[in-house]
Amino acid sequence: MNEFDFLKKLKERARNRGSSVGLVCGIGDDAAVFKLLDRSDVVISTDLLLEDIDFRRDTTRPDLLGHKALAVSLSDIAAMGARPRWSLLSIAVTRDVWESEFLDQFYRGFFQLAERFGVKLIGGDLSRTDSKIVVDSVVLGECPTEREVFRSGAKPGDQIYVTGFLGDAAAGLRLLERGARVHQNATGRRETNSVDHLLLRQLQPEPRVGWGILLGEQRLASSMIDISDGLSSDLHHLCEESGVGALVEASSLPIDTVVTEICGRRALDPLMLALHGGEDYELLFTVAPENVARLPKRVDGIAATRIGEIKKASEGVRISEGSKVWELKPGGWEHFSE
Amino acid sequence: MNEFDFLKKLKERARNRGSSVGLVCGIGDDAAVFKLLDRSDVVISTDLLLEDIDFRRDTTRPDLLGHKALAVSLSDIAAMGARPRWSLLSIAVTRDVWESEFLDQFYRGFFQLAERFGVKLIGGDLSRTDSKIVVDSVVLGECPTEREVFRSGAKPGDQIYVTGFLGDAAAGLRLLERGARVHQNATGRRETNSVDHLLLRQLQPEPRVGWGILLGEQRLASSMIDISDGLSSDLHHLCEESGVGALVEASSLPIDTVVTEICGRRALDPLMLALHGGEDYELLFTVAPENVARLPKRVDGIAATRIGEIKKASEGVRISEGSKVWELKPGGWEHFSE
Repeated sequence: MNEFDFLKKLKERARNRGSSVGLVCGIGDDAAVFKLLDRSDVVISTDLLLEDIDFRRDTTRPDLLGHKALAVSLSDIAAMGARPRWSLLSIAVTRDVWESEFLDQFYRGFFQLAERFGVKLIGGDLSRTDSKIVVDSVVLGECPTEREVFRSGAKPGDQIYVTGFLGDAAAGLRLLERGARVHQNATGRRETNSVDHLLLRQLQPEPRVGWGILLGEQRLASSMIDISDGLSSDLHHLCEESGVGALVEASSLPIDTVVTEICGRRALDPLMLALHGGEDYELLFTVAPENVARLPKRVDGIAATRIGEIKKASEGVRISEGSKVWELKPGGWEHFSE
Repeated sequence: MNEFDFLKKLKERARNRGSSVGLVCGIGDDAAVFKLLDRSDVVISTDLLLEDIDFRRDTTRPDLLGHKALAVSLSDIAAMGARPRWSLLSIAVTRDVWESEFLDQFYRGFFQLAERFGVKLIGGDLSRTDSKIVVDSVVLGECPTEREVFRSGAKPGDQIYVTGFLGDAAAGLRLLERGARVHQNATGRRETNSVDHLLLRQLQPEPRVGWGILLGEQRLASSMIDISDGLSSDLHHLCEESGVGALVEASSLPIDTVVTEICGRRALDPLMLALHGGEDYELLFTVAPENVARLPKRVDGIAATRIGEIKKASEGVRISEGSKVWELKPGGWEHFSE
């Protein structure tokens, strides 16, 4: 199959999936064209995923990679309080990957996630590479004007929350590094197999789309960011943009017992994973005191946990453990650290 | 400098350049947010540029690469008849490139082109790579509703036009392959140095933004595509989407005398370069007979040339040279040919 035949097939698959409301022109022209609802803003995010930097072919599967490529961008859109609508997916592969089942499985994982949120594939780019796989994922969302949630809106006294659990993805990465591999038919349910569960939290992260839309539309969050670099780093980003400080309570951090158990058996520190481990793709957000009562307990079965409070900038970003309080330094992922 | 300092600097540079009309949030949050004019559609395109596939570090310069990364996406937006507004630029570099002047020069080339068209950098991604540079360029344009120009609108009897000259970029590529390199202070003016001129037509292509906007807004073009793969391939794409055939007149093809001269001295065939050479980033468009008289002679100093006529699908895609007529097969660039 040459690339034009492949794109024709992809166009057919894309045509029958996701919502076409507002779509003027999808795959097959020089660019994609779409309309917005009245009084809406466009929210757009782009993420590069590179082989051997962001993923390894021997520790993941093509369908999980297709899922993750979309998930990381959906997470960015959720962190703006917006609703994801459109996606553009670019991929460069080697000739042997091109001639394998890789792309079929990759797009299967991609479309399964896209469909759950009504996201439509409207474009992208396909290229050859000599060595490593390159993926770029673009997601566009829509948001009623002035309902966006920025990193910059936190105020002293606001309560700090995170969705789900922290440190799962980092625990999963440690397991992968020590040789664990996800079983072919793993469901990801933690009750069934806790190792598979953590591996899939790393390889197949679940973007908190429902939480994001709710926090934006109902004006519940004063600021928000998704946790991709790690709680400590991302909280610093949020505090810097908002011009505030923060106090996190270590005992409040939502750490799954599955992580505690795995860590115990492998001499890992669950608190360090929760604070500095990246790629959880949970949402970190702040809520003004008067809005706390309006916050739902769960969205799509996922709870949000209060982990601390926004303080004045002069107080810095700190963490308390019992009676001790110390500075919380950013310790997450950085591509070019000194 | 770490990546967060770099992004802060980039945010400053982006803030002072390009039009901010409609921009709600640029670089620095999870995603960028912008508004559209009333009764407008969003047009979006994404392009991957990979080292040693789409460019070679030893035959180009960082500033030319920054220009080209944006230019190829601007060309896609122009080919939709839309006005470019926003850009997201992702780049992955090795540590030695990171520690060099490369990115400064890359963004200088990028911003110089962006500013000419009022395009604003609103986001992107920055990553490390172990080996080859990866660039992904996203451009968003805006278009009054129903003024988009698709590939699919050509009708039998429509006249076929191209902007500028054909084959220049392919001639430039042949010169690069034979060891020619662009001079540091080359202006690109063909009167000054014809080799530099052709090298820059390959390394620093000029997107036909003015032509694109005019053909869309004034409803002059019935269909349009930009010439990235090569005239023969791209005309086939346009004819297939429109369900038509075409007859091109070889003697009408706009081939610069500079190309003819260079080819003569190097045993190259200018007609083959014009027909099958890619990366000219000229616009190929069709005009209904009743609109031909309204077509301007030049836009931004660039002429458009009539090169043939759209025919019924049953007549195929053909080319005439004097009294001979033969089938014009697609012969341009394909990533995965059989």
